[in-house]
Formats: sequence, C-alpha cells, structure tokens
Amino acid sequence: MGKIVKERDIPKELGEAIEYALLGGGKRIRPFLFLQAFSLFCDREKEIIPFACGIEAIHSYSLVHDDLPVMDDDDYRRGRLTTHKVFGEANALLVGDALLTLGCELMGSVARKFPPALVGEAQQKVIKASGPEGMVGGQYLDLAAEGKELTLEELEEIHRRKTGALIQAALVGGAILGGGDSVAVKSLELYGQELGLLFQITDDLLDVEGDPLITGKSSQKDEVLEKATYPRILGVKATREKAISHCYAAQKALNDLGDRANILKNLAEYVYYRDR
Amino acid sequence: MGKIVKERDIPKELGEAIEYALLGGGKRIRPFLFLQAFSLFCDREKEIIPFACGIEAIHSYSLVHDDLPVMDDDDYRRGRLTTHKVFGEANALLVGDALLTLGCELMGSVARKFPPALVGEAQQKVIKASGPEGMVGGQYLDLAAEGKELTLEELEEIHRRKTGALIQAALVGGAILGGGDSVAVKSLELYGQELGLLFQITDDLLDVEGDPLITGKSSQKDEVLEKATYPRILGVKATREKAISHCYAAQKALNDLGDRANILKNLAEYVYYRDR
Repeated sequence: MGKIVKERDIPKELGEAIEYALLGGGKRIRPFLFLQAFSLFCDREKEIIPFACGIEAIHSYSLVHDDLPVMDDDDYRRGRLTTHKVFGEANALLVGDALLTLGCELMGSVARKFPPALVGEAQQKVIKASGPEGMVGGQYLDLAAEGKELTLEELEEIHRRKTGALIQAALVGGAILGGGDSVAVKSLELYGQELGLLFQITDDLLDVEGDPLITGKSSQKDEVLEKATYPRILGVKATREKAISHCYAAQKALNDLGDRANILKNLAEYVYYRDR
Repeated sequence: MGKIVKERDIPKELGEAIEYALLGGGKRIRPFLFLQAFSLFCDREKEIIPFACGIEAIHSYSLVHDDLPVMDDDDYRRGRLTTHKVFGEANALLVGDALLTLGCELMGSVARKFPPALVGEAQQKVIKASGPEGMVGGQYLDLAAEGKELTLEELEEIHRRKTGALIQAALVGGAILGGGDSVAVKSLELYGQELGLLFQITDDLLDVEGDPLITGKSSQKDEVLEKATYPRILGVKATREKAISHCYAAQKALNDLGDRANILKNLAEYVYYRDR
C-alpha cells in the first residue's frame, strides 16, 4: 500500500503522516474478508486489490480520528504511538480526512477494469457502512454512552454500527464485485453480521483477559473508562458462550457455498481463539 | 437538503448536528456551478440534484473540520456559531466525518438514473479534489504556512488545492454527467481554474475591505493571524487588477460554448463584485 501515497501529488510531510497511519501493521481483516468473499466467485484478485486497500484506508481513518484526544484519547495503537502523538492533532485530523477520501477514490478506481455498475454498488455499501448510519453513528453512540449503564440491545447497536457494518460491507462488497448472485450475497451478509458481533465480543474479552504485550493495547482500559462491555453486562462465562454461538452461526450461514467457503469458516474460529 | 438526514437511520442527536452544519445557509456556489455545467448539456437537472447535494455536503464537512480549535479555531461561520461551539468538539469531528461519507454516498446514488460509468468518473473527480491532493492537502499547506512569508507561487498552490480543486471538480463533474464532450469538459476545467483563483482573491479582498455584518465573518482575521494573502503580497490595487484578469480569463474559456454559457460568464462578474 506504500505506492498509494507515492503515486499521488500529496504534500510531502502530509504524505509521510498518511503512510505512518496506513502502514502501521494491524490485522488487515477487512481487506482480507473482502478478498475472500470476492474470490469465492472470481479469480481476478490481483486487479481488485485497490478496492481492498480502499476499505483498509477507511478503517485506518476511523482509528486515527477515534484515537484523537477529543475522542478516545489513546496514545498507543498496534504497539506504536498514535498518529496525533507523532504528527500533532491538526495533522492527525487531516490524515484521517485524507485516508477517508483516498479510500473512496481507491474503491472507485477499479471501475476501469470491472463493470462500473457493480463497482458503484459495492462502493455505496462500504461508504454507507462508514457513515452516520454505520461507523460514524456507532462512534457517536459509543461516546455518548461513556459512564452510562447500557442494556445488551444498546450495546449491540453500538457494535453493529461501529464495527459490524464495515466488516459486513467488506464481505457484501466482495461478493457483489466478484459476481455472486443475490442468494450468495445474502449468505455473506448474514455471515458478516455474526462475524462482526463475534469480533467485538472477543475484543471485549481480550480487554479483560488479553496480554497487553501481545494485543498492543493497554489492558482493562474499558474497565477504567467504565465502558459498557459484554463481560460487564453478561459476565465472562456467558460472554464466551455467546461468542461460541455467533461463531457457529457465522459458519452455518456459509453452508450453501460448500467447501470453497472453508477459509471464511475457519476465520470465524480464528477470531474466536485470537489473542490480539 | 433537510431530507438527507430524515431519510436515513442516523442517531437522532447526531442527525440534528449534521443538519445544523449542512443547512446553515451559505452561498451554495459549488452545487450551483455543478448544476449550471450539467444543464449546458442535459435538461434532467431534477434527477441529478442528489449529486449536487453531495458536493455541498463535502464542502460543509471541510468547513466544520477547518473551524475546529486545533485547526483555524473559528467561533462564527455564516453569521452563526460554528458546529463545535454548539455541539462540542468530538461531535463536530464526527459531523465532519459524517458529511464527507454522506457526500460520497449522495453522489453515488444517481447511478440508478445515469450511466454508472459517467457517475463513477464524475464522483472520482470530486473525491480526488477533496482529498490529500486537493482540499485536504491545501488545508495542510495552509496550516503549515501560518506566520511564514509565502511567495505568490506558494500562495497559489494552497488556493489551487484548498478552494480551486473542488470548484473545478464541480464544474467538470457536471459537464461529464451532462454528457459534454471532451472539448467542452476542458473548457469548463479552464473556467473552473480561473474562477477558483478569482474566488480566493476576492475572499482575501473581502477580509481587508468587507463589512463583517454582510460577510458574516470577523474582519481582518488574516492580518491578525499573519496569514499570507494576495493583498499582503501584491498590495490591494494589484490584487484587484489580478482579480479582473482572472474574471476575463474565466469568461473567455467559455466562448466556444456560446450564449448558453452566459449564466456562468455572469457568475464570474458576480464573484468579482461580491460583498460576502
């Protein structure tokens, strides 16, 4: 993804800050999901990669803005200083804005090689999932909920918007661009919904049980911030059970797609067992 | 544009903040330019309006973020309190993010009624102009230049990116979507370049000579912030002369389009004579 900045006419220092935010490691789970869903139906993975990078750029933008002092005020991310700690708040704000626009542009760029109608449809899914109905709306509700007791339903709405929507859109977008039919797209949508919840539940579990040296995040931060989490509402044991049931539901959603969906099925287990 | 929020599943208070930022008046010059360029070639203005709203949403996002304390730190905009003054900094940050994503989504939504390839092409122009090569890059350079002496070339680069790129993209996008041929698109690109510079030069002149009661902005703010401006580099008289020459050049760029381009030609004069 380093090429993304170099190929463009971007002021030098701004470009360096964008690269810092974009190339800081991370699991790259959203572009991975996108490419897996795509490759269920089409073998032109190499040509679709800019779209996958666009999804990751949008995810990176959300991390940069969420880490800002006026938001979650995080100093470390993925074991490194956060963007505003290195480049200052004003530049981090601009880096986020830049990554969001770059993300949309990268997605649109594949219209030279794939049917523009499909590219537009997939792009709309990802953009909608990133905006006030999805990720931005989730971050808003999350901030508004700090220090409050939430019901399980309220907690799930936050996660559905904040994390689930983009994970789901990556899968649905991949299926659409690959040429999957509407039944297959629906299967991946359901899988994405279950995986998104599983992902957030295990995130909460890692905050309680994870090793900060492995996760790269401060431990028990949710507890300190009095954030609503699954373990706080349900207890650790019932949270683990809930994670298992979402893992099974995710796998079941892919049954009609046969063996070719095994990587995605295994991924659900990987998310369940993850330590970072 | 009020419908944009109501039609969507957006958390209530976030929706109200988005509406505040989006519906605060302003000249709406970018969607106007887009629609004028479009209507040179196609009479389906009504169906293309969501795209025009998308451009205005992107412009509004840039204002909300630029006004934040870590950026230009403005308390008033268009004669009203800025978004962060009313809703707080964290929410204003999210409102900006929401408007940028909504803007991209609105532009993409017209692919149901216009050829998806053209929609994608016009959308890419606007997104590229909004990102680190355009508006975000210009804001970055503008912040970095505070308190520094700039050459005329450096000042023009900032304006070309920060204001010119989106104005130009609105015109080019309108021409593309309307079905204009490549020669016509080129004419509007040149017109947009001249108009963008004219717009910024008159903005600088208004800061020196304008009436804050009419402009709705604090007067002589550039002077206080020691910002580089045309009047500071060239003097007021030479700045006015420069404005006139860009006004003529803008009008000349449209000569091949005949009388139907008169509204855009007149607009260049309106920008030259504007008092807000």
